[in-house]
Amino acid sequence: MNPLDPLLRAHVVDSFERQAFMSHLGARLTAVEPGWAEITLAYAPTLTQQHGYFHAGVTSAIADTAGGYAALSTFSTRDSILTVDFSLNLLAVAVGDRLVAHSSVVRTGRTITVCSLDVYAVDGESSTHVATGRQTLIRLADRPDR
Amino acid sequence: MNPLDPLLRAHVVDSFERQAFMSHLGARLTAVEPGWAEITLAYAPTLTQQHGYFHAGVTSAIADTAGGYAALSTFSTRDSILTVDFSLNLLAVAVGDRLVAHSSVVRTGRTITVCSLDVYAVDGESSTHVATGRQTLIRLADRPDR
Amino acid sequence: MNPLDPLLRAHVVDSFERQAFMSHLGARLTAVEPGWAEITLAYAPTLTQQHGYFHAGVTSAIADTAGGYAALSTFSTRDSILTVDFSLNLLAVAVGDRLVAHSSVVRTGRTITVCSLDVYAVDGESSTHVATGRQTLIRLADRPDR
Amino acid sequence: MNPLDPLLRAHVVDSFERQAFMSHLGARLTAVEPGWAEITLAYAPTLTQQHGYFHAGVTSAIADTAGGYAALSTFSTRDSILTVDFSLNLLAVAVGDRLVAHSSVVRTGRTITVCSLDVYAVDGESSTHVATGRQTLIRLADRPDR
Repeated sequence: MNPLDPLLRAHVVDSFERQAFMSHLGARLTAVEPGWAEITLAYAPTLTQQHGYFHAGVTSAIADTAGGYAALSTFSTRDSILTVDFSLNLLAVAVGDRLVAHSSVVRTGRTITVCSLDVYAVDGESSTHVATGRQTLIRLADRPDR
Repeated sequence: MNPLDPLLRAHVVDSFERQAFMSHLGARLTAVEPGWAEITLAYAPTLTQQHGYFHAGVTSAIADTAGGYAALSTFSTRDSILTVDFSLNLLAVAVGDRLVAHSSVVRTGRTITVCSLDVYAVDGESSTHVATGRQTLIRLADRPDR
Repeated sequence: MNPLDPLLRAHVVDSFERQAFMSHLGARLTAVEPGWAEITLAYAPTLTQQHGYFHAGVTSAIADTAGGYAALSTFSTRDSILTVDFSLNLLAVAVGDRLVAHSSVVRTGRTITVCSLDVYAVDGESSTHVATGRQTLIRLADRPDR
Repeated sequence: MNPLDPLLRAHVVDSFERQAFMSHLGARLTAVEPGWAEITLAYAPTLTQQHGYFHAGVTSAIADTAGGYAALSTFSTRDSILTVDFSLNLLAVAVGDRLVAHSSVVRTGRTITVCSLDVYAVDGESSTHVATGRQTLIRLADRPDR
């Protein structure tokens, strides 16, 4: 795998940093490579459902966002992308000191990109696969993200 | 449609109020009837993606949560429910002064419940259908939610 | 609702009739209106799973096809469409003398169309909702279907 | 990976062979191991859509069926399984002399099993990834498949 073009990396990082909701959650874009992105989110009591675990809405928010940046990393700085649809299976209760969402591009095309989405709850040294899914995105060519 | 049993309504409201993440978003459970729930969320700059619209993660978080309470309203106060999977099509950019998520139970069974999910962005008098989806849940019989 | 333009109707019917697999199943396009299509399939022992009910693969094949023609009915005779993805919940065992699949366009756009999919098993006078789903399609503008 | 228990293998093969629809398509269960199944389907003109390619309904039928047997292989001969829902992205036109569907169990539980679904169109030596998806199944304990 070639490293990500620095301009495209800056484009991705800039877009992520303008997502106020990611900052409100405390999510960080911890890695981005061509066709791959990772978002990490530390536990906070504000992110929980009624039993004190990570809320499924948090899990899906970072999964969907990781997919968007995995896709964006395969295009040019002149393009933007939009999620068309996504689906997620919740595999286990999300307990841990952080969530880590990974997304890989499965198929990239002129218009449609498909990404896989996986989220892990990490508790110290142990990691649990808490969600797996898939996302369909559309490329808006020559519609820069800002 | 019969009105929701008051004890079951209290059970649903109590569970919602213990979801710290819903409170962190500013979401309110604005209606619950047998097999139906509505969540309303006012716009806030903290809830946005990079263009200042509601983040898709916000849209999906309240859709998924509405589905959980639509499902819970059809059971007893001794049961709890878990989302197994859900999927969402994002139909339009979510611009407005609030989001309103509706969920209806499509099919309820001993173990599996299926809910429809729809989210609208409301701007003054006008409403845009911004997301439509579906959720599969499993009932945990005799595993009270608290 | 306006009636479907006769040229567009002929375009849809012609495309359906060239689907050898629909004919192999015995499926018929029993209605098409703007943004809406219906496919009907009589029971045959060749269409069953291990318990003698309609196979889920049959249910999903006619659901997906109904969605394609619901979408195609909203475009022009110069366009074709492709399914990008679809999802289906199987709500009940599919027992009956026929299956009827309905699809309605939920959202149509320049590139992306979203359809709802519903399949009923009809047994004499009684009808059971056996599947509900959703489909995302892409329009190939000026790429006629034949 | 341990080999599949011979009794469980016979249980899976027997169930597949009673699926009249698989036989009507010409599909064969070409491999089954613990948590994994493969179905192969040779091209036939009866299996096509309007352009002569494999119909998406065929692709999804063998994907869903492969998932069912991947799941069944992880249980006991006293259990049966039902698909609750599945979703599929169609990645490329399905052209080739055969389709091969693979399914792996992602997560198995007391009630819910999740499988990944992937379909390849094979043309001589070359293989194209034509579909990727996911399936949720429910185990019916002590409800033997026949």
